[in-house]
Amino acid sequence: MAKKARTAITPTREENFPEWYQQVIKAADMAENSPVRGCMIVKPNGWAIWENMQRTFDVWLKEYGVQNASFPLLIPLEFMNREAEHVDGFATECAVVTHHRLEKDENGKLVPAGKLEEPYIVRPTSETIIGDSMSRWIQSYRDLPMKLNQWGNVMRWEMRTRMFLRTSEFFWHEGHCAFEDHDGATADCMHILDLYEKFFTEVMAFDGFKGVKTPDERFPGANETYAFEAMMQDGKALQAATTHDLGTTFAKGCNIKYQDRDGGEQFVHTTSWAFSTRAIGGMIMIHGDDDGLIMPPKLAAHQIVILPMVKDDNEAQVMGFAEKVAAALKAKGIRVLLDTREMRTPDKMWDAIKKGIPLRVEIGGREADAEQVSCVRRDLGRESKETLSVEAFVEKAEGLLQAVHDELLSRSRKFRDDNTHEGSSVQDLKDFFGAGKIGFMKVPVTLLDDPALEAVMKEYSLSTRCMPFADGGEKVIIAKAY
Amino acid sequence: MAKKARTAITPTREENFPEWYQQVIKAADMAENSPVRGCMIVKPNGWAIWENMQRTFDVWLKEYGVQNASFPLLIPLEFMNREAEHVDGFATECAVVTHHRLEKDENGKLVPAGKLEEPYIVRPTSETIIGDSMSRWIQSYRDLPMKLNQWGNVMRWEMRTRMFLRTSEFFWHEGHCAFEDHDGATADCMHILDLYEKFFTEVMAFDGFKGVKTPDERFPGANETYAFEAMMQDGKALQAATTHDLGTTFAKGCNIKYQDRDGGEQFVHTTSWAFSTRAIGGMIMIHGDDDGLIMPPKLAAHQIVILPMVKDDNEAQVMGFAEKVAAALKAKGIRVLLDTREMRTPDKMWDAIKKGIPLRVEIGGREADAEQVSCVRRDLGRESKETLSVEAFVEKAEGLLQAVHDELLSRSRKFRDDNTHEGSSVQDLKDFFGAGKIGFMKVPVTLLDDPALEAVMKEYSLSTRCMPFADGGEKVIIAKAY
Repeated sequence: MAKKARTAITPTREENFPEWYQQVIKAADMAENSPVRGCMIVKPNGWAIWENMQRTFDVWLKEYGVQNASFPLLIPLEFMNREAEHVDGFATECAVVTHHRLEKDENGKLVPAGKLEEPYIVRPTSETIIGDSMSRWIQSYRDLPMKLNQWGNVMRWEMRTRMFLRTSEFFWHEGHCAFEDHDGATADCMHILDLYEKFFTEVMAFDGFKGVKTPDERFPGANETYAFEAMMQDGKALQAATTHDLGTTFAKGCNIKYQDRDGGEQFVHTTSWAFSTRAIGGMIMIHGDDDGLIMPPKLAAHQIVILPMVKDDNEAQVMGFAEKVAAALKAKGIRVLLDTREMRTPDKMWDAIKKGIPLRVEIGGREADAEQVSCVRRDLGRESKETLSVEAFVEKAEGLLQAVHDELLSRSRKFRDDNTHEGSSVQDLKDFFGAGKIGFMKVPVTLLDDPALEAVMKEYSLSTRCMPFADGGEKVIIAKAY
Repeated sequence: MAKKARTAITPTREENFPEWYQQVIKAADMAENSPVRGCMIVKPNGWAIWENMQRTFDVWLKEYGVQNASFPLLIPLEFMNREAEHVDGFATECAVVTHHRLEKDENGKLVPAGKLEEPYIVRPTSETIIGDSMSRWIQSYRDLPMKLNQWGNVMRWEMRTRMFLRTSEFFWHEGHCAFEDHDGATADCMHILDLYEKFFTEVMAFDGFKGVKTPDERFPGANETYAFEAMMQDGKALQAATTHDLGTTFAKGCNIKYQDRDGGEQFVHTTSWAFSTRAIGGMIMIHGDDDGLIMPPKLAAHQIVILPMVKDDNEAQVMGFAEKVAAALKAKGIRVLLDTREMRTPDKMWDAIKKGIPLRVEIGGREADAEQVSCVRRDLGRESKETLSVEAFVEKAEGLLQAVHDELLSRSRKFRDDNTHEGSSVQDLKDFFGAGKIGFMKVPVTLLDDPALEAVMKEYSLSTRCMPFADGGEKVIIAKAY
């Protein structure tokens, strides 16, 4: 038996994908579980990714005319009663604030005191409280469209949690817009979904399927939900982002009316849309390998790591050269880490690999003498090593980063395509998922009416992911999902 | 009797300063009270200021080596019991989460369900939960210093609230650092306090007093608290930012130990520091006038507003010229608003004044013909109007913005100096505050031992603000405060 190549992550993806995922996060020092049930601590290496995501996407939202604002963390319980359909879908598990003070009991232990007349919930999403504001802010068609967005934290009391993918507290942006009519709302949903696609492909380097959700998978209260569904390396789906055409549901629940161009009174049409820290979980599961994380260069906190390999007699020379290379790269706007920690070089190298830094540059005495660098791509590994003059490398660095991006994106597309299968019957689904095959199965939407479908869906924990636009709405993707 | 000049804000500062403050916020469309007790909604015009504050200060923190991370919103009640001194100062009023589910009662009304075994509080500050992480993350002196920061929301259940100044939920950054020794912690407190001073003077355009707090005004659990105290136009103090030397208090409470350079085991020395959305309240009360907000140019969402004044026969010409001017300013990196709303020009003008946009440019047919602009500074008003060629204006615009900044800063310094009085006895305090005079009184610190002091402090609602560094710690500032 051939000796198995040693990998930096144990177990490998094939051995145990969920556990591999947790170990990648740990090895990359991105996040950890906290003492608060279901909540994670996002460590600097993880938070830097989210900051980069925010920074990039926020610019796009502002270009589209969206304004950021901030609405309260707490929502009066009464608001949740206003929109029955929404409540039924959401309100089951959430953090409820019932007291506003702590007092010491007879043993000196702090206990809740100051019971509130009306409890609050920590927002699981903000449609109701933003709708309440819109009802005051919108008077006339001149106030429309109103496009608001909030970057923040929300909380849903999750029973089974997994870092980034499903945590009680998570971070997102939530857009909430109001339009004169259905066409405006639909156009908004489509525009934002296109922005999401652009973001996932051009920044996070993965592709998926854009489409419309089946009615049972819609956001509570929505007329239509549109989604971007990506495929993980275990073949499961991850809903990376959604846009919701809320029709007049929330306008009616929150009484958001406007005077139209003819002087009549109308309900606005609202939308909401979001992506969250979940997308980071997707990025890990799409790009990572058995040596750990592979960061898409556009999101990486550090795009290039420089490892100086010094000996007693050349420290000044090597460090001086390494600093020169770092400065030249920084001058090009590249995010560079010069790793000067007191650590063995192999340890530093594996640290950089596990953190997924896209390009690794090694500089020792020989390189410093020759004014050269050796560069290795994280996505291609050791075999991609090439030695270049420092001028050539600095000139080529942006192109190399783009090449890493392109490779990751093209891998994700190939994986998605290779693992998306066509089916035409419930038996096809049974055969595919029953055999433990991984991936998506695309079937005609007419199959949704087949009475035999439900049992198979249940047996293999399947769900409908979306009806891809690319298929003209005639097919639906069925898969296991996160 | 001379007819009083009409002002955009009613009442004026002199007539009713607290009400003027609320009206300025309303007129500038910055924020409003929400249906959630004590929480505000920060509207786009207000949130843009906070975003600019974050963007600028975050860069400085990163330059200093601080890393951003994210810790849970909820804190286990048990954690609050770990640090008795801290708890006594803080835990009285906070939002307590006691349930994790909603259920419908017999009337179909949602009620709290799923009682938690151990309640959580919504973080009023994060020393305890970050300390818990530090106790796991810090092993050796090699892990030190550890400099962490979090941008986020916190909640303290305030009884009397005022937008930005004191709200139940507010927004801040909270830095939490650990050092090997007291010197490291002190140097950190001083460095950050200097950064705060730089931020307030160079970005927010106001000055204040840097100093150390008296023991009774320290943060709960701190060895020393250092503060930047600013003077509002009603003479009251606002603590704009603080840094805390926490000694080993939290290290002991959270068990944060490290192996020192000699192999021994030591407690770390921690610090924490923050400024919050409160500083926006201060900025309003320092710079605003009876026509509303005056924005420091470096924070203004829009630094220059262009008001095109069109007639039926020149709309294309005037708009074309206005767009050209806007483009030329944008090319210089200036944030420009071309106000094309369907509104009367005087209404647009007053809107720009009330929002405090630093420079207002008026462009009508005459200006378009002559390729000129008329420019008015918000801080100096109508009398500062000058007409310039477009080239001259574009060339001069950054200088004009800097001039507005300098004027605001110098006004704040003059006001502070004119209204800071020296006293030497309790009687001096009585005479000053008893006569209803506004401002700070600086007295020898030895006065703190005078038994007659307390009654006067109480009678006039005074507090010690800080012992300014500039006075070598020999004097203390006493004032009314927000």
